[in-house]
Amino acid sequence: MLDHTTRSEDFGYTLLAQDGAARLGTIRTPRGDIRTPAFMPVGTVATVKGLYPEQVKDAGADILLANTYHLMLRPTAERVHTLGGLHKFMRWDGPILTDSGGFQVMSLSKIRKVTEEAATFQSHLDGSRHQLSPERSIEIQCLLGADIQMQLDECIELPASHAETARAMELSLRWAERSRAAFEANVERGLARRGQALFGIVQGGVEPDLRRRSAETLVGMDLPGYAVGGLAVGEGQEVMLRTLEATVPFLPATKPRYLMGVGTPDDLIAAVARGIDMFDCVLPTRNGRHGLAFTWEGRVNLRNAKHADDPAPLDPSSTCPAARDYSRAYLHHLVKSGELLGGMLLSWINTAFYQELMAAMREAIREGRFATWADETRVRMARS
Amino acid sequence: MLDHTTRSEDFGYTLLAQDGAARLGTIRTPRGDIRTPAFMPVGTVATVKGLYPEQVKDAGADILLANTYHLMLRPTAERVHTLGGLHKFMRWDGPILTDSGGFQVMSLSKIRKVTEEAATFQSHLDGSRHQLSPERSIEIQCLLGADIQMQLDECIELPASHAETARAMELSLRWAERSRAAFEANVERGLARRGQALFGIVQGGVEPDLRRRSAETLVGMDLPGYAVGGLAVGEGQEVMLRTLEATVPFLPATKPRYLMGVGTPDDLIAAVARGIDMFDCVLPTRNGRHGLAFTWEGRVNLRNAKHADDPAPLDPSSTCPAARDYSRAYLHHLVKSGELLGGMLLSWINTAFYQELMAAMREAIREGRFATWADETRVRMARS
Repeated sequence: MLDHTTRSEDFGYTLLAQDGAARLGTIRTPRGDIRTPAFMPVGTVATVKGLYPEQVKDAGADILLANTYHLMLRPTAERVHTLGGLHKFMRWDGPILTDSGGFQVMSLSKIRKVTEEAATFQSHLDGSRHQLSPERSIEIQCLLGADIQMQLDECIELPASHAETARAMELSLRWAERSRAAFEANVERGLARRGQALFGIVQGGVEPDLRRRSAETLVGMDLPGYAVGGLAVGEGQEVMLRTLEATVPFLPATKPRYLMGVGTPDDLIAAVARGIDMFDCVLPTRNGRHGLAFTWEGRVNLRNAKHADDPAPLDPSSTCPAARDYSRAYLHHLVKSGELLGGMLLSWINTAFYQELMAAMREAIREGRFATWADETRVRMARS
Repeated sequence: MLDHTTRSEDFGYTLLAQDGAARLGTIRTPRGDIRTPAFMPVGTVATVKGLYPEQVKDAGADILLANTYHLMLRPTAERVHTLGGLHKFMRWDGPILTDSGGFQVMSLSKIRKVTEEAATFQSHLDGSRHQLSPERSIEIQCLLGADIQMQLDECIELPASHAETARAMELSLRWAERSRAAFEANVERGLARRGQALFGIVQGGVEPDLRRRSAETLVGMDLPGYAVGGLAVGEGQEVMLRTLEATVPFLPATKPRYLMGVGTPDDLIAAVARGIDMFDCVLPTRNGRHGLAFTWEGRVNLRNAKHADDPAPLDPSSTCPAARDYSRAYLHHLVKSGELLGGMLLSWINTAFYQELMAAMREAIREGRFATWADETRVRMARS
């Protein structure tokens, strides 16, 4: 689809208000604006699990995420490109962010080898061998037509030594340069345009000096946005937040900041308080499929027998019909019976709740009462 | 809910047109009219698998079916009653038909014993022991609040001897009398009202003389509707149709006729041609979950690799958004990836197709061209 467009609009970020370190902003893309702080529902293999695209949009999501690793294996980037790009394929006309594939190579594939040149791995689907270089990752993301693309980075497992963390971080910096050059080359050959944006990823594990070096070097490349990667891999919230505090101050106020793979409602609030603008996570849909609902009164486990006779909905004041119109007793019955509709309704409810949460954060920042709102919300959510 | 109503409307059937043996009609119920020939989507455990109730309604369904056997075990009829009845529980305000539970006792439960008094069986869920008598079956259906209720019958496996078939048929006739008495008693005690209807079930296997005796005896009871049971259990279409031809002539023109558990589009056309008004079957949703679509051009197996690069929708002229707006390539991808959305879309498509099929049959009968329409449709569906 992109081949036929002659849009002149560019990618950009506007900081609208700041409240402490928390930021209210807008990311402009040729496919529409993204209100930040923003939560991106995850459409792993070109579908947000259990939801129709209209439901994701109506829930208030401005952008969603899709996974390069999964899509390169099936249905393949070339096929999606031939079919008109990812937006048309999955019927989502808003912005899409794709990751680089690096994280799933680490977490899903059977055998992998990382060299200066590329990551080599075997598909978790059929064992076939694949190579993912910075150039190939960007080519895939351009073939998919992603509006926001991520540099390839090396994700290491934590804990790791300072030396090993430094090695992977330095490699990721060199891959950032190669990713940028590859993106420019794709613009030249007409596979991408300047309204699409390539984000750098700050690495460096939980080492403040490495995080700073990574951030400063990436900022020197003047990329349109920066992610904080390599967190939410088991280090715990406290360490994650400390690492954010050691990273965000080195990122420019003029660019969006994206914390990858995070998190719980509490994580989101804490990270927004530290200056993060964008998030993605599978929790809303994964927990939904497992019978767990997120609400303003905390998590609700619909498997619990106490819901069996409860005619009340999960949240009568919700903007989501599923939270408003179905009884807890019915949701309990569906979950206990293993019915598709149970996972559908709870994934919908959670996806809508995450968007409500982001909207409430944006409102609180706009009104300069984010810290108070955050305290009250944490107390409220901890009640149940 | 029913306790609070003072509706005076009654149950009734109006024959609007006849074309050969095919009938166009309307079943009136206090919860709304049912256009016949009608196909009832199956909401086994109070959910049509993979569909929101709004989708079932929008697809054109006037009535749906729910299973007494499943609901009596979980969440239990008493619980559904306390929660306000099945309509409120599953958010379906149109008519609901419940079966008697007899068929699933035969097909699903582990141990069963049938006596004059009742069927005794062990739950397939937890092995707990239950008894289903005509009185208890009707009580459950009244507790659920079903608009159309079915007598308890004994379903035997085919092939069976004439003597064994006769024995089960005679027992089912006695159970019909007891079911009717139980329904009347529930009206007396306020658990049912006269706008709800109890249907008799013609049994007799594939024996014309037994089918005739069963039909004539039931007609003597002057019930508001009659089902043909014990078919579609592996006897093959030809035998099923021959049995219909030996049964329907003994049913009154003034009452609706329901062929239980049938069937494929071709089965429905052939049975309507023989005077049947109502159907139910799990095929649309079950096949949908398995990647099979029903279309006017026949069945389409979306697992087939030939769809991988096909940007065309399943049916651009469909009334169903899922058939119209999603490419075959995307459906193929979802099915191959085992994604929830694949089953959701295909169940929706098939549910809508079955309603389109019934609407087309009603139109053809109204215009007196059913036989021609049936021939053309069969040819068209056999093409792919």
